[in-house]
Amino acid sequence: MSPVELVVAPRWLIPVEPAGAILEDHAVAVGDGRILSVGPANELREAHPDADWIDRPDHALIPGLVNAHTHAAMNLLRGYADDLPLDTWLAEHIWPAEGRWVNRDFVRDGADLAILEMIRGGTTSFQDMYFFPDEVGAVAAERGIRAVVSMIVIGAPTVWAESTDEYLSRGLEVHDRYKDHPLVKTAFAPHAPYTVDDDALRRIVTLADQTDTCIHMHVHETAREVQDAVDANGKRPLQRLDELGLLTPQLNAVHMTELSDNEISLLSSRGVHVVHCPESNMKLASGSCPSGKLIASGVNVALGTDGAASNNDLDMFGEMRSAALLGKITSEDASALPAATVLQMATLNGARALGLGEETGSLTPGKSADMVCVNLNVPACQPVHNPLSQIVYSAGRDQVSDVWVAGRALYTEGKYLSTEPDDVLARANAWMTRMQAEA
Amino acid sequence: MSPVELVVAPRWLIPVEPAGAILEDHAVAVGDGRILSVGPANELREAHPDADWIDRPDHALIPGLVNAHTHAAMNLLRGYADDLPLDTWLAEHIWPAEGRWVNRDFVRDGADLAILEMIRGGTTSFQDMYFFPDEVGAVAAERGIRAVVSMIVIGAPTVWAESTDEYLSRGLEVHDRYKDHPLVKTAFAPHAPYTVDDDALRRIVTLADQTDTCIHMHVHETAREVQDAVDANGKRPLQRLDELGLLTPQLNAVHMTELSDNEISLLSSRGVHVVHCPESNMKLASGSCPSGKLIASGVNVALGTDGAASNNDLDMFGEMRSAALLGKITSEDASALPAATVLQMATLNGARALGLGEETGSLTPGKSADMVCVNLNVPACQPVHNPLSQIVYSAGRDQVSDVWVAGRALYTEGKYLSTEPDDVLARANAWMTRMQAEA
Repeated sequence: MSPVELVVAPRWLIPVEPAGAILEDHAVAVGDGRILSVGPANELREAHPDADWIDRPDHALIPGLVNAHTHAAMNLLRGYADDLPLDTWLAEHIWPAEGRWVNRDFVRDGADLAILEMIRGGTTSFQDMYFFPDEVGAVAAERGIRAVVSMIVIGAPTVWAESTDEYLSRGLEVHDRYKDHPLVKTAFAPHAPYTVDDDALRRIVTLADQTDTCIHMHVHETAREVQDAVDANGKRPLQRLDELGLLTPQLNAVHMTELSDNEISLLSSRGVHVVHCPESNMKLASGSCPSGKLIASGVNVALGTDGAASNNDLDMFGEMRSAALLGKITSEDASALPAATVLQMATLNGARALGLGEETGSLTPGKSADMVCVNLNVPACQPVHNPLSQIVYSAGRDQVSDVWVAGRALYTEGKYLSTEPDDVLARANAWMTRMQAEA
Repeated sequence: MSPVELVVAPRWLIPVEPAGAILEDHAVAVGDGRILSVGPANELREAHPDADWIDRPDHALIPGLVNAHTHAAMNLLRGYADDLPLDTWLAEHIWPAEGRWVNRDFVRDGADLAILEMIRGGTTSFQDMYFFPDEVGAVAAERGIRAVVSMIVIGAPTVWAESTDEYLSRGLEVHDRYKDHPLVKTAFAPHAPYTVDDDALRRIVTLADQTDTCIHMHVHETAREVQDAVDANGKRPLQRLDELGLLTPQLNAVHMTELSDNEISLLSSRGVHVVHCPESNMKLASGSCPSGKLIASGVNVALGTDGAASNNDLDMFGEMRSAALLGKITSEDASALPAATVLQMATLNGARALGLGEETGSLTPGKSADMVCVNLNVPACQPVHNPLSQIVYSAGRDQVSDVWVAGRALYTEGKYLSTEPDDVLARANAWMTRMQAEA
């Protein structure tokens, strides 16, 4: 066993496993990037007198947040077009802007901005879907954040690839590059049922099996998507995906606003993971994922922010609150999605969806030390009757005081330790200036 | 005309009037607590060389936010009981706690905490409903925030009063105490249709006319409230209120989740103001106010946070975002409640509802200098394609850099100037310790 190098001693420790636990005066001992033990702070202090000791007397320590669906580079398009329905927003604004501007540099600079934002807000793992995934992986690795980058496939030529063959071969190159990386993984990312054909999906199923990777896909994002598919070929997209063999525990099905009870049972029996993106679905008026019903049926439901162009931030604290509030009002049940469930969605469920359930998502001995400290000593979170309630219902991203990934501190006491914010922001602004000059 | 004492020069100036305007390189000149002019920064600099000059080069300046419905003292019950429906939450948790704990000191300390939170988050005016309103007014006046405190009436004895006579006479004493106060006003606050009888409501209508004050009331908060009224006396509460003469431009009807199209027309023709509390309605699964339809029908819709026991914060930035997102998804229209409309709901519409439309709610010459500066130079708000979008969809309460009420700075550069946060937080924690010891 590695020696204990670091002990973090918060006022409240919320490990997520066991569910709902809130430990007071406990601490986490870390060595070689892993959680070695969780126990009473006084015992750990006696046992490890030489470790770095970090006291956080007004804080809650939680597992690092897992943003299970985003398009990091789209941070450069934050606020570029708002208050429009999904189809208009995509076809008339976002796709033209992407066609004009997206290249390798855009992706690097946009992902770097997104990572800056995510670290600040306590996100320690994210799953991305975008072009130039090798670049997203490179920036993530450099900044020390955990990432699942996408072997994207879309049925149209883009700056990244021209054909299914090329999408797949470029994706597999990225897979090979990162296959032994400690922080970066890859997942196949067929864009959506309406943009990827059967042949490509069949090949992805085979390749995902061979490479043991996840498949990350927008599915049933809107009622219109489902109706269009029914009109075109008589099948709802989920039925088609099932026939093609995609409904397995490897699938991360994102959005899922349109689901019948039979489909919920099907997802449960197939072990599919659902990634719920409440704020994007609300902002684009796409619909509402029946998150409470899915969870009750045994489906693993994770949380994602979607991209900053449709949210308009990558704030997992806001996303937790929105998931809870939306879940309650749409189910007409105030007891739906209680705070502990929502924090689990944003941590452990996300880790499981990404195939990282053994590695991160809870403060459990043996897992990577992906941890976030949240300062509850601000007016908006006082007094603390219940720290778990404060985390979900009151805390803001700005209250994150410390972020560790694999035991490495990425942010502490107002300072980034693995990135230069001024440089990242200057590059983002240079892109905006160019875009605005041509707008 | 008063001399210009202060000029604030932000990067972006969002005056709310005219609607949707975003002025670059403009500034606001302030004297004797009022906005004297809004104009190009270079012209104001030349014209007023001796004024205090405050440059905010990365910031948006907006009118101070108006929280049109809260129960400030309930900040001491933040997180006390969560994930429960309205009736259980009230009857089994909140009312017993209030019965046990609420007294003059509780209200003073709770309101002081709420004001600390509201100032930090850019709220410059709030409308309260609670017991010991004289105490709420006193704390507000001392801290320099604008408040409308409640002449509360409820059909049961409480620590504040025993009978309708006593509620009204104590309320009128508070009204007399504050009637010429520059910051504190009063409004009658019959709690809800189901807790106040016809006789009390008739007397309130008469007294509100005589004293020229608003009436602030929870109305149609849930479907059950409406159904219970229909079952008991064959009338929906709004019909009863109309027959009693309450539906006038003096009424601030709070929540309003259950509304027929006919009722929306009625509200519009009567000039009733609606106060929408999206997060409280979502968290308690109360229902959803048809805010977009109301606005389209010409009803003035303001925003409120409700109390911290049901929200769980008094964050008007979060409330703006939730109002926009909820409005879009429930109307199935992503263009509903665009950013400019939502900012107006949180400022000018709130001011109008509170009878303060000539005094605050927009950056307009002649109005009180109630202003808030928001720093957009944080990773989650960069780059700034559209500052109005950032304010509503991306900004957090923590980005408020400066708050002025009537030209007096209450918060600037991380410091409170009219309150002692450590003292306020210590008193809040002493209450919590007492409550927890008995729980």
